[in-house]
Amino acid sequence: MRTNLPEVEAYIQSCMSDSAHDTEHVYRVLNYALDIAKHEGGADLELLTTACLMHDISRADQFADPGIDHAIHGSLKAHRWLAENGYSTEFADTVRDCIETHRFRSDNPPQSLEAKILFDADKLDVCGAVGIARTLLYKSHVVEPLYSFTDQGKISDGTKDTEPSFMQEYKFKLEGIYNKFYTKRGFELAAKRKAAAQNFYDALLAEVRECYSGRA
Amino acid sequence: MRTNLPEVEAYIQSCMSDSAHDTEHVYRVLNYALDIAKHEGGADLELLTTACLMHDISRADQFADPGIDHAIHGSLKAHRWLAENGYSTEFADTVRDCIETHRFRSDNPPQSLEAKILFDADKLDVCGAVGIARTLLYKSHVVEPLYSFTDQGKISDGTKDTEPSFMQEYKFKLEGIYNKFYTKRGFELAAKRKAAAQNFYDALLAEVRECYSGRA
Repeated sequence: MRTNLPEVEAYIQSCMSDSAHDTEHVYRVLNYALDIAKHEGGADLELLTTACLMHDISRADQFADPGIDHAIHGSLKAHRWLAENGYSTEFADTVRDCIETHRFRSDNPPQSLEAKILFDADKLDVCGAVGIARTLLYKSHVVEPLYSFTDQGKISDGTKDTEPSFMQEYKFKLEGIYNKFYTKRGFELAAKRKAAAQNFYDALLAEVRECYSGRA
Repeated sequence: MRTNLPEVEAYIQSCMSDSAHDTEHVYRVLNYALDIAKHEGGADLELLTTACLMHDISRADQFADPGIDHAIHGSLKAHRWLAENGYSTEFADTVRDCIETHRFRSDNPPQSLEAKILFDADKLDVCGAVGIARTLLYKSHVVEPLYSFTDQGKISDGTKDTEPSFMQEYKFKLEGIYNKFYTKRGFELAAKRKAAAQNFYDALLAEVRECYSGRA
């Protein structure tokens, strides 16, 4: 056993803040990751577990300073903590790399199997009804509205929005996430959840448009 | 014209705070109320409009001091503002009564037609996908989780929960709201939205239970 999990868990709990990225998110990501690893085979489960537990430790830092990228910041913070707490350099380096690439960015994709599994597990928690719920929790945290209005005074579906809102987030991020998985198992789990998210978005848009159309 | 609407709107905007009870909620309630009034007939539209616009002016006060009932506090605050701004005593009294009874409490039901319409319009905004979205925005604001665990370590469906969460709120408040309408039109509009809310709750519960069951 290279990882003292209770120690890691106590540390990450000291780093957590908002409802959308609370420790339950972390444990869901860990559950997804272990499920994907079981189906894919070949992953280092101790490494993967540690990376999952620590992947969002810099969320609070990013909230405090939006200029911070929590993936980069968290990867270095995890590395430092692991190095200071007796973990091997190789272990700390690999955990760092997993955390650094868990956030979607086209120029820095995950490389190792564990990094790809963490990426997919984290993205699964943005899919389906859970993804809708977490997005709404986040929108409240950053005080952004459900929808915006077009120049013609109609409620926008989010497609062309330049201002942040739930509808904009759905169109720009949530709707397209189902094709961005590295593992077969991650893709399959995500596909099962797509309809719940789409149905919610469709219902929300229909309800507010009906309300404002005078045909409520 | 007894009501200076731009003046009322400027005042209420100075009283608004969180995403769940922002001014868009107020305008949706106003839209629903005017729709219900059109179908029911006989309502005083100026009075109803003023009561709708002012119904949540004490939400921020309730957040600052949870011992405050925003319906009672808001009714008195609205009355004071109307009296100080040249509205008749009769008008201010009736707006006060509408706001006082807009929150569900079995011992203080709405009496006038306008009070019943405001009550129904406000409850409509807790129905369907909009109601789900607003509940999640609110849960984030008060930093409450999506779900709790039973004593057996399973994810609870909310039915017997004693701790606040989204699941608990759905079971204790949202699920049963569809039968608590005073007007026929309000009841009909609510009924159309019930499935969207139920489907979301069902999907969320299934997703998180699957995630924690090891069968993610």
